[in-house]
Amino acid sequence: MPPAIEPRTLKGFRDLPPALMIPRERVLEAARRVYRSYGFAPIDTPALEYADVLLGKAGGETERQVYRFRDQGDRDVALRFDLTVPFARYAAQHVTRPDCGVPFKRYAMGPVWRGENTSPGRYREFWQCDFDTIGTTATSADAEVVLVVHDLFAALEIERFTIRLNNRLVLTGVLETVGVADKAAELLRSLDKLAKAGREGVIAEMVREAGVTTEQAGQVLALAETEGSNADILAQIEAQFGANPKAAEGIAKLREVLATAAAVGIPEGRVRLDLSIARGLDYYTGTIYETFLDDLPGIGSVCSGGRYDNLAGLYTNAVLPGVGASLGVDRLLTAMGELNHPWLASGKATPADVLVVVFDAKYGTLYQRAAQELRAAGVATEVYPEAKKPKVQFEYANRRGFRVALIGGPDEFAAGLWKVKDLRARTEATAEPAAVVTHIHRMLAGTP
Amino acid sequence: MPPAIEPRTLKGFRDLPPALMIPRERVLEAARRVYRSYGFAPIDTPALEYADVLLGKAGGETERQVYRFRDQGDRDVALRFDLTVPFARYAAQHVTRPDCGVPFKRYAMGPVWRGENTSPGRYREFWQCDFDTIGTTATSADAEVVLVVHDLFAALEIERFTIRLNNRLVLTGVLETVGVADKAAELLRSLDKLAKAGREGVIAEMVREAGVTTEQAGQVLALAETEGSNADILAQIEAQFGANPKAAEGIAKLREVLATAAAVGIPEGRVRLDLSIARGLDYYTGTIYETFLDDLPGIGSVCSGGRYDNLAGLYTNAVLPGVGASLGVDRLLTAMGELNHPWLASGKATPADVLVVVFDAKYGTLYQRAAQELRAAGVATEVYPEAKKPKVQFEYANRRGFRVALIGGPDEFAAGLWKVKDLRARTEATAEPAAVVTHIHRMLAGTP
Repeated sequence: MPPAIEPRTLKGFRDLPPALMIPRERVLEAARRVYRSYGFAPIDTPALEYADVLLGKAGGETERQVYRFRDQGDRDVALRFDLTVPFARYAAQHVTRPDCGVPFKRYAMGPVWRGENTSPGRYREFWQCDFDTIGTTATSADAEVVLVVHDLFAALEIERFTIRLNNRLVLTGVLETVGVADKAAELLRSLDKLAKAGREGVIAEMVREAGVTTEQAGQVLALAETEGSNADILAQIEAQFGANPKAAEGIAKLREVLATAAAVGIPEGRVRLDLSIARGLDYYTGTIYETFLDDLPGIGSVCSGGRYDNLAGLYTNAVLPGVGASLGVDRLLTAMGELNHPWLASGKATPADVLVVVFDAKYGTLYQRAAQELRAAGVATEVYPEAKKPKVQFEYANRRGFRVALIGGPDEFAAGLWKVKDLRARTEATAEPAAVVTHIHRMLAGTP
Repeated sequence: MPPAIEPRTLKGFRDLPPALMIPRERVLEAARRVYRSYGFAPIDTPALEYADVLLGKAGGETERQVYRFRDQGDRDVALRFDLTVPFARYAAQHVTRPDCGVPFKRYAMGPVWRGENTSPGRYREFWQCDFDTIGTTATSADAEVVLVVHDLFAALEIERFTIRLNNRLVLTGVLETVGVADKAAELLRSLDKLAKAGREGVIAEMVREAGVTTEQAGQVLALAETEGSNADILAQIEAQFGANPKAAEGIAKLREVLATAAAVGIPEGRVRLDLSIARGLDYYTGTIYETFLDDLPGIGSVCSGGRYDNLAGLYTNAVLPGVGASLGVDRLLTAMGELNHPWLASGKATPADVLVVVFDAKYGTLYQRAAQELRAAGVATEVYPEAKKPKVQFEYANRRGFRVALIGGPDEFAAGLWKVKDLRARTEATAEPAAVVTHIHRMLAGTP
């Protein structure tokens, strides 16, 4: 008889087995550690909110994608589609109170839901991992975002990445100088497509969509194509557009961010001015950030953000300027897989390193005691649950990716010893009970 | 003008500010560390699933409580109401495949949603934190649950707790002996209410609901009221019911679980036989567990579970027996708050210990460099974003719960020193740059 229900998941949703979940936990743990080290504090907000709260500012596409329904109490509710809108609502309710106040630095991690078209690496449920400082307009907070992202990628053991930096004020100043400031939204949307659509494609779109002349479009593009060292680029745009107050202000802020990054020892190549990044979102008003993996630029930015003048204007009259960024956890994990990052390449499906092989159930308490000693010494250790054939237990150990097997049977126990087997090096040795922990520590460290 | 949208959350849903979220992360981290140390591997399943998959086995109450709706593709979908049903579905799809196989040990942590009546400490969105071993009937897996729960509460820095243990086989054997086995469901449901309803209330309900005689009800209750040491209780029920094969099997398994707990050094008082716990859920068939806080028994069990004969029968013909338990994270956090547990009592709203006070923005890079040095030494350090009055910055530091302030102004820098202030002891000292890290380490460790 077939089972009553076919086990299946929804399109765009997925299970994460241990071999994917272990790296995801490691990524989240790295982000948590780095965010915390700068004083960002965790908050959590509900997955489900009133639809009007979540959709207040949303346009047509978001409205179409959001999971929205009536709950048991006939409330119009929706699943969050990002962590920014719930944070804005949170800020209006809590941060404005005197027992909290500003500056307020928070991080949040969790799934968000969008019923959009799926494609490889793009899901309807995916994790975000945001950090923001609100309640200050100081550029030191903008600079700190670069420091955090830099530490984050170091913690992720990713060496080849580039943080790309721009400032909306520079873009606005340039558009004013060229005389096309009233077309900013259309022009920046087109500019964002430069990498994909190419120079001619973007100029054509600017002429078509924004109604500017080919020459004006060319001037806007020339800015985005400014090349050279960060200092060169700043000097060029200062010479060309520095007379415009907004451009001048943006240039000064970019200088301060770069100076701070240099002061703490971040190599210049890691943080690059890129005047072509505009980020479509209207609410960014100052510094903007994107982070690319040098060996996989096509996957797009894996950590993006920017400065905004006011986070929570929909929900409060208090003005809360801020700056922050968001790590796209699932996109990053896809990329790490493609790059054979060691956290994913091992395919390890257990968090434990040692398997205690059960030769005979009558020795059960000996096995459990040995395992507890290893755990107390910080070595995650699993005891096989029953006395199956050793072959079956070793196959299990290899399938899961255990590194060491601890073996005790009548021969070993008669001699007062344990057998310790390195499952990768395929070597084995015997050890007295008191020496087992040291022996296994050495095997795991890869020292003979 | 009032803001466009009133910021608010749904009834039964809540925001977790840093002072609550920092302890929750600590609880989850403790659980993760302990589960991993036994070889339980993390998995994740979607929040949203096909309604028939989630509700296949569910009764009326669950059906009423579940958040269920039609998605954009007109699919009948629902939010998960626990982590067990999705795990059963997962097991049918993945664990039965040869590249996974059994035993399979997993943990899962995440929010679940039930539209039930709310009360203090009871929410419509709450976190569960489950671990299970499936694919084995070996009692060593049952014993391991006790070891895990014991290590978990030690990791949570909770000393006064009791794991209560029973075995459904014993209950069944007793009911068979008394001749009321066909009324097991009603009788066990009544038995579960002993603590609340009292002896007479339970007997009356058994007579009324299960149609047994007062004498039969009394015999069932007498079992639940067996008292004494674990060994005494086992001896008593063995003498009385040991002739019944199921009771005998249950007694043997309880003995094995207790022997393993004793062998790894768990004090007898921590693990108590309690023949009155039955756990309403029909699918438990062997060992059952509940965990109570000795100083707050009224809050009920904060970590419960048991053995089941078959996890995923609805979705697969493969038989997957297993055993596991679930930590009720939010109930536990409520309890820890009531007990003034140090993780909650501090009210600390920042994960950082040190605040660098900004005297003048022109020293910005000095502050940032000092902060980076502290972070590199493992000390979470925040730099105040701007040069507000020191009074404002110190008020901020105290409100958030920073422990140390690092201060540098013209006087200090002229002397080549930093000022280090212990914000709790209200003492301060000066330190040369090279000595700042050591000095702050000492302050945080509470050594002068």
